[in-house]
Amino acid sequence: MALQTLADAFHDELRDILSAEKQLVKALPKMAKAASSEELRAGFEKHLEETKTQVERVEQAFEETGKAARAKTCEAMEGLLAEASSMMEEEADPEVMDAILIGCAQKVEHYEIATYGTLCTWAKQLGYKAAYKLLKANMAEEVATDEALTALSETVNAEAKA
Amino acid sequence: MALQTLADAFHDELRDILSAEKQLVKALPKMAKAASSEELRAGFEKHLEETKTQVERVEQAFEETGKAARAKTCEAMEGLLAEASSMMEEEADPEVMDAILIGCAQKVEHYEIATYGTLCTWAKQLGYKAAYKLLKANMAEEVATDEALTALSETVNAEAKA
Repeated sequence: MALQTLADAFHDELRDILSAEKQLVKALPKMAKAASSEELRAGFEKHLEETKTQVERVEQAFEETGKAARAKTCEAMEGLLAEASSMMEEEADPEVMDAILIGCAQKVEHYEIATYGTLCTWAKQLGYKAAYKLLKANMAEEVATDEALTALSETVNAEAKA
Repeated sequence: MALQTLADAFHDELRDILSAEKQLVKALPKMAKAASSEELRAGFEKHLEETKTQVERVEQAFEETGKAARAKTCEAMEGLLAEASSMMEEEADPEVMDAILIGCAQKVEHYEIATYGTLCTWAKQLGYKAAYKLLKANMAEEVATDEALTALSETVNAEAKA
């Protein structure tokens, strides 16, 4: 596969985030199950529903490229989720595990924020208006999720310390 | 290894970012070499020097934990750099490759921003004042690097489109 033009790079990056979001749909139920805090579990469950919609938006964003909406394994998300998975096997106190889960989830959100940031910049430059709108909507949800996790970390971590 | 307390989790996360920063010290020269834009290459070279200092700060941040400053392979950074590496093998136009390199670098920066965010929150709660200061300094550099890359993406991507 050659990435000669910015349009090629955009399509390739879209395939990457489609894989990342699909991996996350599988991982979030495990993270929700590992959470002790009711609020954190609810947060993961809410973001699972959002993520399913995000997969659909990414698939729609392929339209302007004129190419198939086919995922390409995102190795970075694989690494992030492998780390989260090995963390979940630790025998941590419940409050500590919650603090760890928040940390893992924020890494995931930041991966997505960076990727959607790049995709939005490129969509704008390529004149892909519909894709831009869809990707911007996903990005806004990732930023909101990251902020909610930061707010939650203050209460959860205080319990982990106590 | 048991992660029973928040102090254990902090130590573990410090080992993760130490590995991540060390991996980046090896990767940045390759990214600088792959860059065509003079400004982008200079940016990578500048960040390489910063990253070397960041490794030292992370090593110093271990002091308050009373445990050894030993890295633990960061799988997430391995995934991020594996992706960057396979992208660099593409036969893209020079301007497109620069846009791709910026995207890869911003994913790396966001991984670090998320990790230092967690580490700073935990250091504060654990009363690790020296570590907090060191980690906050690293975080500020990552945020500044991410912002510089965003600014650069506007000129570089405009060339990629043209």
